[in-house]
Amino acid sequence: MRRILPLLLAAPLLLAQAPSPQAAPETQPVYNAADSIIANAPASHWIDIPADDIMVMETAAGTMAIQLAPQFAPAHVAAIKALVRTGQFDDGRIVRVQDNYVVQWTARPDPAKPKAAPLPAEYERPMAGLSFTPSPYQDTYAQAGWVSGWQAARDPATGTAWLAHCYATVGVGRDNPPDTGDSTELYTVIGHGPRHLDRNIANVGRVLSGIEPHAALPRGSEALGFYRTEAEKPKITRVRLASQIPGFARWQMMDTASPSFAAVVQARANRTGFFPRPAGAADLCTLRVPVRAVK
Amino acid sequence: MRRILPLLLAAPLLLAQAPSPQAAPETQPVYNAADSIIANAPASHWIDIPADDIMVMETAAGTMAIQLAPQFAPAHVAAIKALVRTGQFDDGRIVRVQDNYVVQWTARPDPAKPKAAPLPAEYERPMAGLSFTPSPYQDTYAQAGWVSGWQAARDPATGTAWLAHCYATVGVGRDNPPDTGDSTELYTVIGHGPRHLDRNIANVGRVLSGIEPHAALPRGSEALGFYRTEAEKPKITRVRLASQIPGFARWQMMDTASPSFAAVVQARANRTGFFPRPAGAADLCTLRVPVRAVK
Repeated sequence: MRRILPLLLAAPLLLAQAPSPQAAPETQPVYNAADSIIANAPASHWIDIPADDIMVMETAAGTMAIQLAPQFAPAHVAAIKALVRTGQFDDGRIVRVQDNYVVQWTARPDPAKPKAAPLPAEYERPMAGLSFTPSPYQDTYAQAGWVSGWQAARDPATGTAWLAHCYATVGVGRDNPPDTGDSTELYTVIGHGPRHLDRNIANVGRVLSGIEPHAALPRGSEALGFYRTEAEKPKITRVRLASQIPGFARWQMMDTASPSFAAVVQARANRTGFFPRPAGAADLCTLRVPVRAVK
Repeated sequence: MRRILPLLLAAPLLLAQAPSPQAAPETQPVYNAADSIIANAPASHWIDIPADDIMVMETAAGTMAIQLAPQFAPAHVAAIKALVRTGQFDDGRIVRVQDNYVVQWTARPDPAKPKAAPLPAEYERPMAGLSFTPSPYQDTYAQAGWVSGWQAARDPATGTAWLAHCYATVGVGRDNPPDTGDSTELYTVIGHGPRHLDRNIANVGRVLSGIEPHAALPRGSEALGFYRTEAEKPKITRVRLASQIPGFARWQMMDTASPSFAAVVQARANRTGFFPRPAGAADLCTLRVPVRAVK
C-alpha cells in the first residue's frame, strides 16, 4: 500500500489543461476543489500573457519559461529583453544553486562591452495605476495580495507595492553594496519564500514552467552555493522571447480579481478530504496564481 | 564581477563550528549579525540532542541525520526506532520527490509481517508540560513560536501545540482517509513550508544534516512526484540510530528560550548591510533553530 500526501500546492504550476491524477469522478477527493474551480473557470477569468513578456531559457537541465513583469520593473525588463535579443544569455552559465534558496545564472561575459549604466532600483513602485486584491489572511511582512495575476504586497504608509519573493519568483542579483544589478545575473527562488528580500532587490518575474529540473540541480560546494569549477556550471544554450519562437504556446494567468481566483483562495485555505482540520487561512506564497498553456 | 545574494537563511543548518564564508573580519557584512550571535552563544544556551533521538539514514544520494521528537509524537517515534533497530529501513527506497513539496521514503516491505496496529494520531498534543516561546511576529496560521528547540505553533482555544511544517520537517505519510500512518513511510519537506498540513499529519522530527543532495534528487514523473520505475528509486542502504554508531558526532540545538536565540530572531528580522529596508519581521519557517555538531 502506498501512502500519499495530497497533491494541492505540490505542483509549481496549476495547468488547467493537465488532467489531475486524482480527477477520476468516482475517486476525486474534496480537497481538489481548487483544481475543479480552475478547470471550470470561464475564459473571462483568464488573462493572456504577452508572448513578448515570456523569456524561454534552454539549459543543460531543461527549458524554463519565465514571465517578465514590466509593470513592476520596466527598466530591468527592458534591459533583459535587450540582452535576450542580442544573444547575450546564449552560452551563459548557471553559476549557483543554494539549497532552500536560489538557482542563479549569468549572461555570457562580454569583455568588450563597457559596464552598463546603473538601472533604477525598482524594488517597489507606486500603487497608483495598480489594481490590488488583498489577501483575506494575515501576512507576517506586509499587506499581502495580488496585482493582476502576481503575488504581491503593499504598504499603505508609503503608497507602494512590490512583487513578493516566493517559490519561482525571478529577481536580479546584485552586489553587496546596495546597487540595482545590471540584469546580466538573474536568480529564481527554489526554497521557502525569502520575503525578507522584498523591497531589497528588483524582482522581474516568475517561472511559468520548467523550474523542476533546475531546482533539482546539484547544490554548489562553495560559499552561497556557487559552483567551484567552470565544468560544474550548467550551460545556457539559448534564450529567446516567446515572441521570437514560431508556434510557441499561448500562456494565460488567472485574473486575480476574478471570482474564480477568490474561490481558489477559499478552497486552498479550507481544504477538506485529506484534511481533518482545514487551516482556515493560507499564506501568500502558498496561494499561487494558476497559469496555463492553451492551444 | 560576481553578484551575490546574502547568505543568511540559505544554509539549512547554521553550524556554529563551520567558518562562515564571509567571516573574515575585514569583510564581514553587518547582516551576518545572526551568525556572530550563534558563534558566540555560551554553552548554557545550547541543548544536547540525545544520540538515541537521531536517525542516521544512508542512501544512494548521501547521509541524512534526522532528529526525532518523542515529546510530540511518542508512539510514532517509538515505532520508528523499533523499525530502525530491526533493520526494516535497510534496503528501503526513496519513492517520491515532488518539486516544492516533499521527498518521501519507505521501509523495506515485509510481506510476512502482519499490518501494524494503528498508532494514535499525534497530530498535536496538550500544551501542558511544554515551554512555549512565542514568536514576536504575526503568523498566518496560528500562534507561532518554539518549544525547546523546535519550530512549533499552538492554539490557546484547544490548549494544544504541534510541530510546524517547515523546510526539513519530517512527517509520517498516510493514506487519504484520515489514519495515522504506521511509520514505515516518512517524508521531509523540500519546498515552501506547507503549514496547511499542520495538525493533519504526525510530524516526528527534522533533518539536522544532509538534506541537500536529497532535495536535489530528480523529481518523479508520476502523479504526486512518485517515481515510475523501481530502478529510479534511490536505495536506502542503511539506517541506524546515532546511539548505535561509535564515534558519531554529538549534536546540539540552540535553546529557543535563551537570550541568544531571542537575539538571533531579532537579527534575522532586522537584517542590515545588504538590506536597505529590513523587514522588521520574519515568519516561523525562516526562523530556523540553529543546530551544530560538536567534538
